[in-house]
Amino acid sequence: MIGIFDSGVGGMTVARAIEHICPGYPLIYFGDIARTPYGSKSPETIIEYSRRNTDFLLNNGATLIVIACNSAASTAADALRSHYTVPVLDVISPATVKAAAVTKNQRIGVIGTRATVRSGVYTDRITALNAQCRVFSQACPLLVPLVEEGWLNKRETKMILRRYLSPIKRQQIDTLVLGCTHYPLLHKLIQPRIGKRVQLIDSSVEVARHVKEFLDKSPETNHKLSGQTTNSRFFVSDSTGPVRQLANRIFGRTIHLEKVDA
Amino acid sequence: MIGIFDSGVGGMTVARAIEHICPGYPLIYFGDIARTPYGSKSPETIIEYSRRNTDFLLNNGATLIVIACNSAASTAADALRSHYTVPVLDVISPATVKAAAVTKNQRIGVIGTRATVRSGVYTDRITALNAQCRVFSQACPLLVPLVEEGWLNKRETKMILRRYLSPIKRQQIDTLVLGCTHYPLLHKLIQPRIGKRVQLIDSSVEVARHVKEFLDKSPETNHKLSGQTTNSRFFVSDSTGPVRQLANRIFGRTIHLEKVDA
Repeated sequence: MIGIFDSGVGGMTVARAIEHICPGYPLIYFGDIARTPYGSKSPETIIEYSRRNTDFLLNNGATLIVIACNSAASTAADALRSHYTVPVLDVISPATVKAAAVTKNQRIGVIGTRATVRSGVYTDRITALNAQCRVFSQACPLLVPLVEEGWLNKRETKMILRRYLSPIKRQQIDTLVLGCTHYPLLHKLIQPRIGKRVQLIDSSVEVARHVKEFLDKSPETNHKLSGQTTNSRFFVSDSTGPVRQLANRIFGRTIHLEKVDA
Repeated sequence: MIGIFDSGVGGMTVARAIEHICPGYPLIYFGDIARTPYGSKSPETIIEYSRRNTDFLLNNGATLIVIACNSAASTAADALRSHYTVPVLDVISPATVKAAAVTKNQRIGVIGTRATVRSGVYTDRITALNAQCRVFSQACPLLVPLVEEGWLNKRETKMILRRYLSPIKRQQIDTLVLGCTHYPLLHKLIQPRIGKRVQLIDSSVEVARHVKEFLDKSPETNHKLSGQTTNSRFFVSDSTGPVRQLANRIFGRTIHLEKVDA
Protein backbone atom coordinates (compact mmCIF):
# COMPACT_ATOMS: atom_id res chain seq x y z
CA MET A 1 0.00 0.00 0.00
CA ILE A 2 1.14 3.52 -0.82
CA GLY A 3 1.03 5.60 2.35
CA ILE A 4 0.74 9.36 1.90
CA PHE A 5 0.72 11.99 4.60
CA ASP A 6 0.25 15.73 4.68
CA SER A 7 -0.33 18.38 7.30
CA GLY A 8 -3.84 18.78 5.94
CA VAL A 9 -5.91 18.31 2.87
CA GLY A 10 -3.60 19.92 0.27
CA GLY A 11 -1.63 16.68 -0.04
CA MET A 12 -4.69 15.18 -1.63
CA THR A 13 -3.49 16.77 -4.87
CA VAL A 14 -0.61 14.25 -4.54
CA ALA A 15 -3.00 11.37 -3.80
CA ARG A 16 -5.13 12.43 -6.76
CA ALA A 17 -2.09 12.55 -9.07
CA ILE A 18 -0.89 9.11 -7.84
CA GLU A 19 -4.37 7.70 -8.44
CA HIS A 20 -4.19 9.00 -12.03
CA ILE A 21 -0.61 8.00 -12.80
CA CYS A 22 -0.49 4.71 -10.84
CA PRO A 23 -4.04 3.39 -11.30
CA GLY A 24 -4.99 0.27 -9.38
CA TYR A 25 -2.68 0.74 -6.40
CA PRO A 26 -4.32 0.93 -3.00
CA LEU A 27 -3.64 4.24 -1.25
CA ILE A 28 -3.79 5.16 2.41
CA TYR A 29 -3.82 8.88 3.17
CA PHE A 30 -3.40 10.65 6.48
CA GLY A 31 -4.13 14.38 6.76
CA ASP A 32 -3.12 15.93 10.08
CA ILE A 33 -5.91 18.52 10.00
CA ALA A 34 -5.90 18.86 13.79
CA ARG A 35 -2.37 20.27 13.67
CA THR A 36 -2.39 22.04 10.29
CA PRO A 37 -0.59 24.13 9.10
CA TYR A 38 2.95 22.81 9.49
CA GLY A 39 4.38 25.68 7.42
CA SER A 40 4.45 28.05 10.37
CA LYS A 41 5.84 25.55 12.91
CA SER A 42 9.39 24.93 14.10
CA PRO A 43 11.56 22.12 12.63
CA GLU A 44 11.44 20.07 15.87
CA THR A 45 7.65 20.15 15.92
CA ILE A 46 7.36 19.23 12.23
CA ILE A 47 9.70 16.23 12.71
CA GLU A 48 7.74 15.01 15.74
CA TYR A 49 4.41 15.19 13.89
CA SER A 50 5.88 13.56 10.76
CA ARG A 51 7.02 10.57 12.82
CA ARG A 52 3.57 10.14 14.32
CA ASN A 53 1.99 10.31 10.86
CA THR A 54 4.43 7.74 9.47
CA ASP A 55 3.76 5.39 12.40
CA PHE A 56 0.04 5.64 11.71
CA LEU A 57 0.49 4.76 8.01
CA LEU A 58 2.85 1.85 8.75
CA ASN A 59 0.49 0.48 11.42
CA ASN A 60 -2.24 0.52 8.78
CA GLY A 61 -0.34 -1.43 6.15
CA ALA A 62 1.71 1.11 4.20
CA THR A 63 4.85 -0.34 2.60
CA LEU A 64 5.99 2.90 0.96
CA ILE A 65 5.73 6.41 2.41
CA VAL A 66 5.15 9.56 0.37
CA ILE A 67 5.63 12.83 2.23
CA ALA A 68 3.02 14.95 0.46
CA CYS A 69 3.60 18.04 2.58
CA ASN A 70 6.34 20.38 1.37
CA SER A 71 7.02 21.71 4.84
CA ALA A 72 7.44 18.18 6.21
CA ALA A 73 9.43 17.03 3.17
CA SER A 74 11.88 19.91 3.50
CA THR A 75 12.27 19.53 7.25
CA ALA A 76 11.64 15.91 8.23
CA ALA A 77 12.52 13.66 5.24
CA ASP A 78 16.09 12.93 6.37
CA ALA A 79 14.94 12.22 9.93
CA LEU A 80 12.31 9.77 8.65
CA ARG A 81 14.74 8.00 6.28
CA SER A 82 17.23 7.41 9.07
CA HIS A 83 14.50 6.21 11.45
CA TYR A 84 12.48 3.83 9.21
CA THR A 85 13.44 1.00 6.86
CA VAL A 86 10.59 1.45 4.33
CA PRO A 87 11.22 3.68 1.30
CA VAL A 88 10.37 7.33 1.97
CA LEU A 89 9.68 9.41 -1.15
CA ASP A 90 9.09 13.12 -0.88
CA VAL A 91 7.22 15.71 -2.87
CA ILE A 92 10.27 17.94 -3.35
CA SER A 93 12.99 15.95 -5.13
CA PRO A 94 11.06 15.00 -8.30
CA ALA A 95 10.05 18.64 -8.88
CA THR A 96 13.65 19.82 -8.52
CA VAL A 97 14.87 17.17 -10.99
CA LYS A 98 12.22 18.26 -13.48
CA ALA A 99 12.94 21.98 -13.02
CA ALA A 100 16.69 21.52 -13.52
CA ALA A 101 15.96 19.43 -16.64
CA VAL A 102 13.55 21.79 -18.39
CA THR A 103 15.02 25.22 -17.70
CA LYS A 104 16.79 26.77 -20.68
CA ASN A 105 18.06 29.99 -19.15
CA GLN A 106 18.99 28.44 -15.78
CA ARG A 107 16.70 30.88 -13.94
CA ILE A 108 14.13 29.03 -11.81
CA GLY A 109 11.50 30.41 -9.46
CA VAL A 110 10.11 28.57 -6.43
CA ILE A 111 7.01 29.51 -4.44
CA GLY A 112 6.02 27.84 -1.17
CA THR A 113 5.17 28.34 2.50
CA ARG A 114 7.51 30.27 4.75
CA ALA A 115 8.97 27.06 6.25
CA THR A 116 9.68 25.56 2.83
CA VAL A 117 11.35 28.70 1.51
CA ARG A 118 13.30 29.31 4.72
CA SER A 119 14.67 25.75 4.60
CA GLY A 120 16.31 26.56 1.24
CA VAL A 121 15.75 22.94 0.19
CA TYR A 122 14.64 23.69 -3.38
CA THR A 123 17.59 25.98 -3.99
CA ASP A 124 20.03 23.48 -2.51
CA ARG A 125 18.73 20.54 -4.52
CA ILE A 126 18.40 22.39 -7.82
CA THR A 127 21.90 23.84 -7.59
CA ALA A 128 23.24 20.41 -6.56
CA LEU A 129 21.78 19.07 -9.83
CA ASN A 130 23.05 21.99 -11.89
CA ALA A 131 25.41 24.50 -10.34
CA GLN A 132 24.69 26.95 -13.18
CA CYS A 133 21.06 27.38 -12.06
CA ARG A 134 19.98 30.45 -10.16
CA VAL A 135 16.94 29.92 -7.95
CA PHE A 136 14.63 32.76 -6.84
CA SER A 137 12.33 31.85 -3.97
CA GLN A 138 9.25 33.58 -2.66
CA ALA A 139 7.29 32.65 0.47
CA CYS A 140 3.53 32.98 -0.13
CA PRO A 141 2.00 32.31 3.31
CA LEU A 142 -1.47 33.65 2.45
CA LEU A 143 -2.10 31.31 -0.49
CA VAL A 144 -2.96 28.27 1.63
CA PRO A 145 -5.68 30.09 3.62
CA LEU A 146 -7.05 31.57 0.37
CA VAL A 147 -7.26 28.11 -1.26
CA GLU A 148 -8.77 26.62 1.88
CA GLU A 149 -11.44 29.34 1.79
CA GLY A 150 -12.19 28.39 -1.80
CA TRP A 151 -11.30 31.94 -2.95
CA LEU A 152 -9.94 30.54 -6.22
CA ASN A 153 -11.29 33.26 -8.47
CA LYS A 154 -11.54 36.31 -6.22
CA ARG A 155 -9.98 39.64 -7.09
CA GLU A 156 -8.08 39.74 -3.78
CA THR A 157 -6.48 36.36 -4.54
CA LYS A 158 -5.32 37.65 -7.93
CA MET A 159 -3.88 40.81 -6.34
CA ILE A 160 -2.08 38.86 -3.64
CA LEU A 161 -0.69 36.48 -6.27
CA ARG A 162 0.55 39.43 -8.33
CA ARG A 163 2.24 40.88 -5.23
CA TYR A 164 3.93 37.57 -4.45
CA LEU A 165 4.93 36.77 -8.05
CA SER A 166 6.19 40.17 -9.17
CA PRO A 167 9.67 39.97 -7.51
CA ILE A 168 10.41 36.59 -9.12
CA LYS A 169 8.88 37.65 -12.44
CA ARG A 170 11.39 40.52 -12.56
CA GLN A 171 14.16 37.90 -12.39
CA GLN A 172 13.12 36.64 -15.85
CA ILE A 173 12.73 33.03 -14.78
CA ASP A 174 11.62 30.52 -17.43
CA THR A 175 10.50 27.83 -14.94
CA LEU A 176 8.39 28.12 -11.76
CA VAL A 177 8.08 25.32 -9.22
CA LEU A 178 4.75 25.21 -7.33
CA GLY A 179 6.37 24.17 -4.06
CA CYS A 180 3.19 23.60 -2.05
CA THR A 181 0.50 21.00 -2.63
CA HIS A 182 -2.27 23.61 -2.42
CA TYR A 183 -0.93 25.60 -5.35
CA PRO A 184 -2.06 23.33 -8.23
CA LEU A 185 -5.55 24.65 -7.46
CA LEU A 186 -4.22 28.13 -8.36
CA HIS A 187 -2.49 26.95 -11.55
CA LYS A 188 -4.84 28.88 -13.86
CA LEU A 189 -4.37 32.11 -11.87
CA ILE A 190 -0.60 31.76 -11.62
CA GLN A 191 0.16 31.09 -15.31
CA PRO A 192 -1.05 34.45 -16.73
CA ARG A 193 0.48 36.41 -13.83
CA ILE A 194 3.94 34.89 -14.09
CA GLY A 195 3.81 34.92 -17.93
CA LYS A 196 2.73 32.29 -20.42
CA ARG A 197 6.31 31.48 -21.45
CA VAL A 198 7.18 30.33 -17.93
CA GLN A 199 6.81 26.57 -17.47
CA LEU A 200 5.02 25.65 -14.25
CA ILE A 201 6.26 22.53 -12.44
CA ASP A 202 3.51 20.88 -10.37
CA SER A 203 5.24 19.09 -7.49
CA SER A 204 2.20 16.80 -6.99
CA VAL A 205 2.34 15.48 -10.55
CA GLU A 206 6.12 15.08 -10.46
CA VAL A 207 6.10 13.01 -7.25
CA ALA A 208 3.33 10.81 -8.68
CA ARG A 209 5.52 10.10 -11.74
CA HIS A 210 8.39 9.31 -9.39
CA VAL A 211 6.21 6.87 -7.40
CA LYS A 212 5.31 5.13 -10.69
CA GLU A 213 8.98 4.78 -11.70
CA PHE A 214 9.82 3.47 -8.24
CA LEU A 215 7.05 0.87 -8.31
CA ASP A 216 7.92 -0.22 -11.85
CA LYS A 217 11.45 -1.10 -10.80
CA SER A 218 10.72 -2.39 -7.27
CA PRO A 219 8.83 -5.71 -7.63
CA GLU A 220 8.97 -6.32 -3.86
CA THR A 221 6.91 -3.18 -3.19
CA ASN A 222 4.76 -3.65 -6.26
CA HIS A 223 1.50 -5.27 -5.22
CA LYS A 224 -0.73 -3.84 -7.89
CA LEU A 225 -4.29 -4.99 -7.48
CA SER A 226 -5.44 -5.80 -10.99
CA GLY A 227 -9.08 -5.24 -11.79
CA GLN A 228 -9.63 -3.07 -8.73
CA THR A 229 -9.96 0.58 -9.71
CA THR A 230 -9.60 2.09 -6.27
CA ASN A 231 -9.77 1.17 -2.64
CA SER A 232 -8.10 4.23 -1.27
CA ARG A 233 -8.75 5.23 2.32
CA PHE A 234 -8.53 8.76 3.61
CA PHE A 235 -7.89 9.37 7.31
CA VAL A 236 -7.82 12.77 8.99
CA SER A 237 -7.07 13.86 12.54
CA ASP A 238 -9.98 16.30 12.33
CA SER A 239 -12.80 16.98 9.91
CA THR A 240 -14.81 20.13 9.16
CA GLY A 241 -17.10 21.29 6.38
CA PRO A 242 -14.49 23.36 4.50
CA VAL A 243 -12.02 20.44 4.68
CA ARG A 244 -14.56 18.04 3.15
CA GLN A 245 -15.42 20.59 0.45
CA LEU A 246 -11.76 21.03 -0.47
CA ALA A 247 -11.21 17.24 -0.60
CA ASN A 248 -14.19 16.86 -2.91
CA ARG A 249 -13.01 19.77 -5.08
CA ILE A 250 -9.54 18.23 -5.47
CA PHE A 251 -10.86 14.80 -6.45
CA GLY A 252 -13.90 15.92 -8.39
CA ARG A 253 -15.95 13.36 -6.47
CA THR A 254 -17.20 12.81 -2.93
CA ILE A 255 -14.36 11.65 -0.68
CA HIS A 256 -15.16 9.79 2.53
CA LEU A 257 -12.88 11.13 5.28
CA GLU A 258 -12.40 8.82 8.28
CA LYS A 259 -11.60 10.72 11.48
CA VAL A 260 -9.05 9.15 13.81
CA ASP A 261 -7.81 10.44 17.17
CA ALA A 262 -5.04 12.98 16.94
CA MET B 1 -1.70 34.21 39.39
CA ILE B 2 -3.91 35.02 36.42
CA GLY B 3 -3.63 32.20 33.89
CA ILE B 4 -4.47 33.05 30.28
CA PHE B 5 -4.52 30.70 27.33
CA ASP B 6 -5.08 31.08 23.62
CA SER B 7 -4.62 28.96 20.52
CA GLY B 8 -1.78 31.23 19.52
CA VAL B 9 -0.40 34.68 19.98
CA GLY B 10 -3.59 36.72 19.37
CA GLY B 11 -4.66 36.19 22.99
CA MET B 12 -1.76 38.39 23.97
CA THR B 13 -4.05 41.33 23.23
CA VAL B 14 -6.00 40.04 26.27
CA ALA B 15 -2.82 39.69 28.35
CA ARG B 16 -1.79 43.19 27.30
CA ALA B 17 -5.21 44.61 28.26
CA ILE B 18 -5.12 42.82 31.64
CA GLU B 19 -1.63 44.18 32.28
CA HIS B 20 -2.97 47.71 31.63
CA ILE B 21 -6.22 47.41 33.55
CA CYS B 22 -5.00 45.18 36.43
CA PRO B 23 -1.44 46.45 36.93
CA GLY B 24 0.74 44.57 39.42
CA TYR B 25 -0.88 41.15 39.04
CA PRO B 26 1.38 38.31 37.93
CA LEU B 27 0.26 36.75 34.64
CA ILE B 28 1.00 33.38 33.16
CA TYR B 29 0.21 32.98 29.47
CA PHE B 30 0.10 29.86 27.35
CA GLY B 31 -0.13 30.12 23.55
CA ASP B 32 -0.71 26.80 21.81
CA ILE B 33 1.18 27.86 18.68
CA ALA B 34 1.96 24.24 17.74
CA ARG B 35 -1.75 23.57 17.24
CA THR B 36 -2.98 26.97 16.07
CA PRO B 37 -5.50 27.82 14.68
CA TYR B 38 -8.36 26.40 16.71
CA GLY B 39 -10.95 28.24 14.61
CA SER B 40 -10.97 25.60 11.88
CA LYS B 41 -11.00 22.59 14.23
CA SER B 42 -13.89 20.45 15.48
CA PRO B 43 -15.51 21.03 18.90
CA GLU B 44 -14.09 17.78 20.36
CA THR B 45 -10.56 18.74 19.37
CA ILE B 46 -10.92 22.28 20.76
CA ILE B 47 -12.18 20.94 24.12
CA GLU B 48 -9.32 18.43 24.35
CA TYR B 49 -6.68 21.10 23.69
CA SER B 50 -8.34 23.56 26.08
CA ARG B 51 -8.13 21.02 28.90
CA ARG B 52 -4.45 20.44 28.25
CA ASN B 53 -3.82 24.20 28.26
CA THR B 54 -5.74 24.67 31.52
CA ASP B 55 -3.81 21.80 33.16
CA PHE B 56 -0.56 23.47 32.15
CA LEU B 57 -1.59 26.83 33.67
CA LEU B 58 -2.85 25.23 36.91
CA ASN B 59 0.33 23.16 37.26
CA ASN B 60 2.27 26.42 36.98
CA GLY B 61 0.41 28.26 39.69
CA ALA B 62 -2.64 29.84 38.07
CA THR B 63 -5.56 30.41 40.44
CA LEU B 64 -7.86 31.99 37.87
CA ILE B 65 -8.22 30.99 34.20
CA VAL B 66 -9.00 33.39 31.37
CA ILE B 67 -9.88 31.76 28.05
CA ALA B 68 -8.43 34.35 25.68
CA CYS B 69 -9.31 32.44 22.52
CA ASN B 70 -12.76 33.09 21.12
CA SER B 71 -12.96 29.70 19.45
CA ALA B 72 -12.10 27.95 22.72
CA ALA B 73 -14.35 30.25 24.78
CA SER B 74 -17.33 29.54 22.54
CA THR B 75 -16.74 25.80 22.42
CA ALA B 76 -14.94 24.70 25.59
CA ALA B 77 -15.86 27.14 28.41
CA ASP B 78 -18.74 25.04 29.77
CA ALA B 79 -16.65 21.86 29.64
CA LEU B 80 -13.83 23.57 31.56
CA ARG B 81 -16.18 25.06 34.19
CA SER B 82 -17.70 21.66 34.92
CA HIS B 83 -14.29 20.00 35.06
CA TYR B 84 -12.28 22.45 37.21
CA THR B 85 -12.96 24.19 40.51
CA VAL B 86 -11.01 27.40 39.81
CA PRO B 87 -12.88 30.36 38.30
CA VAL B 88 -12.91 30.27 34.50
CA LEU B 89 -13.55 33.64 32.82
CA ASP B 90 -13.92 33.87 29.08
CA VAL B 91 -13.32 36.52 26.47
CA ILE B 92 -16.88 36.37 25.10
CA SER B 93 -19.30 37.19 27.93
CA PRO B 94 -17.97 40.65 28.88
CA ALA B 95 -18.13 41.80 25.23
CA THR B 96 -21.73 40.62 24.90
CA VAL B 97 -22.74 42.44 28.10
CA LYS B 98 -21.12 45.62 26.83
CA ALA B 99 -22.68 45.33 23.37
CA ALA B 100 -26.17 44.76 24.76
CA ALA B 101 -25.65 47.77 27.08
CA VAL B 102 -24.42 50.30 24.53
CA THR B 103 -26.57 49.57 21.47
CA LYS B 104 -29.31 52.13 20.87
CA ASN B 105 -31.02 50.61 17.84
CA GLN B 106 -30.68 46.97 19.03
CA ARG B 107 -28.78 46.04 15.86
CA ILE B 108 -25.40 44.50 16.68
CA GLY B 109 -22.75 43.06 14.37
CA VAL B 110 -20.26 40.35 15.35
CA ILE B 111 -17.15 39.33 13.41
CA GLY B 112 -15.04 36.29 14.27
CA THR B 113 -13.54 33.05 13.01
CA ARG B 114 -15.72 30.46 11.35
CA ALA B 115 -15.89 28.33 14.54
CA THR B 116 -16.95 31.29 16.68
CA VAL B 117 -19.64 32.40 14.28
CA ARG B 118 -20.89 28.87 13.65
CA SER B 119 -21.25 28.31 17.39
CA GLY B 120 -23.77 31.17 17.54
CA VAL B 121 -22.54 31.98 21.03
CA TYR B 122 -22.51 35.77 20.60
CA THR B 123 -26.02 35.80 19.18
CA ASP B 124 -27.30 33.50 21.94
CA ARG B 125 -25.76 35.50 24.78
CA ILE B 126 -26.69 38.93 23.43
CA THR B 127 -30.31 37.92 22.82
CA ALA B 128 -30.41 36.27 26.27
CA LEU B 129 -29.45 39.67 27.71
CA ASN B 130 -31.89 41.60 25.55
CA ALA B 131 -34.40 39.69 23.43
CA GLN B 132 -35.01 42.85 21.36
CA CYS B 133 -31.50 42.77 19.93
CA ARG B 134 -30.86 41.50 16.45
CA VAL B 135 -27.37 40.13 15.87
CA PHE B 136 -25.71 39.96 12.44
CA SER B 137 -22.65 37.71 12.34
CA GLN B 138 -19.92 37.42 9.75
CA ALA B 139 -17.13 34.84 9.69
CA CYS B 140 -13.84 36.43 8.59
CA PRO B 141 -11.43 33.48 8.32
CA LEU B 142 -8.73 35.33 6.37
CA LEU B 143 -8.20 38.10 8.92
CA VAL B 144 -6.11 36.01 11.31
CA PRO B 145 -3.60 35.00 8.61
CA LEU B 146 -3.45 38.61 7.39
CA VAL B 147 -2.71 39.90 10.91
CA GLU B 148 -0.17 37.14 11.50
CA GLU B 149 1.59 38.19 8.28
CA GLY B 150 1.71 41.75 9.57
CA TRP B 151 -0.34 42.95 6.57
CA LEU B 152 -1.97 45.60 8.74
CA ASN B 153 -1.95 48.36 6.18
CA LYS B 154 -2.01 46.55 2.83
CA ARG B 155 -4.56 47.30 0.12
CA GLU B 156 -5.61 43.63 -0.04
CA THR B 157 -6.37 43.61 3.69
CA LYS B 158 -8.58 46.69 3.25
CA MET B 159 -10.41 45.08 0.30
CA ILE B 160 -10.96 41.82 2.18
CA LEU B 161 -12.22 43.77 5.20
CA ARG B 162 -14.64 45.70 2.99
CA ARG B 163 -15.90 42.42 1.50
CA TYR B 164 -16.44 40.92 4.96
CA LEU B 165 -17.97 44.03 6.51
CA SER B 166 -20.32 45.08 3.72
CA PRO B 167 -23.13 42.55 4.46
CA ILE B 168 -23.32 43.60 8.14
CA LYS B 169 -22.91 47.29 7.29
CA ARG B 170 -26.06 47.01 5.14
CA GLN B 171 -27.92 45.88 8.26
CA GLN B 172 -27.37 49.35 9.78
CA ILE B 173 -25.83 48.09 12.98
CA ASP B 174 -24.75 50.68 15.56
CA THR B 175 -22.40 48.33 17.47
CA LEU B 176 -19.77 45.88 16.21
CA VAL B 177 -18.14 43.26 18.42
CA LEU B 178 -14.57 42.30 17.47
CA GLY B 179 -15.05 38.64 18.33
CA CYS B 180 -11.46 37.51 17.82
CA THR B 181 -8.39 38.54 19.76
CA HIS B 182 -6.45 39.29 16.59
CA TYR B 183 -8.90 41.94 15.45
CA PRO B 184 -7.91 44.79 17.80
CA LEU B 185 -4.81 45.09 15.60
CA LEU B 186 -7.19 45.94 12.71
CA HIS B 187 -9.23 48.44 14.75
CA LYS B 188 -8.07 51.44 12.71
CA LEU B 189 -8.91 49.72 9.41
CA ILE B 190 -12.29 48.44 10.58
CA GLN B 191 -13.67 51.72 11.98
CA PRO B 192 -13.75 53.72 8.71
CA ARG B 193 -15.04 50.72 6.74
CA ILE B 194 -17.93 49.91 9.04
CA GLY B 195 -18.70 53.62 9.59
CA LYS B 196 -17.57 56.09 12.23
CA ARG B 197 -20.95 56.04 14.01
CA VAL B 198 -20.64 52.32 14.77
CA GLN B 199 -19.19 51.62 18.22
CA LEU B 200 -16.52 48.93 18.17
CA ILE B 201 -16.44 46.57 21.17
CA ASP B 202 -12.96 45.16 21.79
CA SER B 203 -13.43 41.78 23.48
CA SER B 204 -9.86 41.88 24.86
CA VAL B 205 -10.45 45.15 26.71
CA GLU B 206 -13.85 44.01 27.99
CA VAL B 207 -12.55 40.75 29.45
CA ALA B 208 -9.71 42.66 31.14
CA ARG B 209 -12.27 44.96 32.80
CA HIS B 210 -14.20 41.88 33.88
CA VAL B 211 -11.06 40.33 35.41
CA LYS B 212 -10.51 43.55 37.37
CA GLU B 213 -14.07 43.54 38.73
CA PHE B 214 -13.72 39.88 39.64
CA LEU B 215 -10.43 40.44 41.51
CA ASP B 216 -11.76 43.52 43.30
CA LYS B 217 -14.59 41.51 44.82
CA SER B 218 -12.74 38.18 45.33
CA PRO B 219 -10.16 38.74 48.08
CA GLU B 220 -9.23 35.04 48.13
CA THR B 221 -8.01 35.20 44.54
CA ASN B 222 -6.60 38.68 44.96
CA HIS B 223 -2.87 38.41 45.56
CA LYS B 224 -1.79 41.69 44.09
CA LEU B 225 1.93 42.11 44.29
CA SER B 226 2.46 45.71 45.29
CA GLY B 227 5.56 47.45 44.04
CA GLN B 228 6.18 44.87 41.34
CA THR B 229 5.26 46.24 37.93
CA THR B 230 5.29 42.98 36.02
CA ASN B 231 6.52 39.46 36.36
CA SER B 232 4.44 37.96 33.62
CA ARG B 233 5.61 34.76 31.95
CA PHE B 234 4.74 33.78 28.41
CA PHE B 235 4.85 30.13 27.41
CA VAL B 236 4.26 28.80 23.90
CA SER B 237 4.11 25.29 22.47
CA ASP B 238 6.11 26.49 19.47
CA SER B 239 8.02 29.61 18.55
CA THR B 240 8.89 31.15 15.17
CA GLY B 241 10.08 34.54 13.95
CA PRO B 242 6.64 35.85 12.88
CA VAL B 243 5.17 34.75 16.23
CA ARG B 244 7.82 36.66 18.16
CA GLN B 245 7.32 39.71 15.94
CA LEU B 246 3.58 39.68 16.52
CA ALA B 247 4.04 39.30 20.29
CA ASN B 248 6.40 42.26 20.33
CA ARG B 249 4.02 44.31 18.16
CA ILE B 250 1.09 43.63 20.51
CA PHE B 251 3.02 44.61 23.64
CA GLY B 252 5.12 47.36 22.16
CA ARG B 253 8.16 45.83 23.86
CA THR B 254 10.29 42.70 23.53
CA ILE B 255 8.46 39.71 24.95
CA HIS B 256 10.43 36.67 26.05
CA LEU B 257 8.58 33.55 24.86
CA GLU B 258 9.44 30.33 26.72
CA LYS B 259 8.92 27.22 24.58
CA VAL B 260 7.49 24.16 26.33
CA ASP B 261 6.77 20.73 24.85
CA ALA B 262 3.43 20.40 23.14
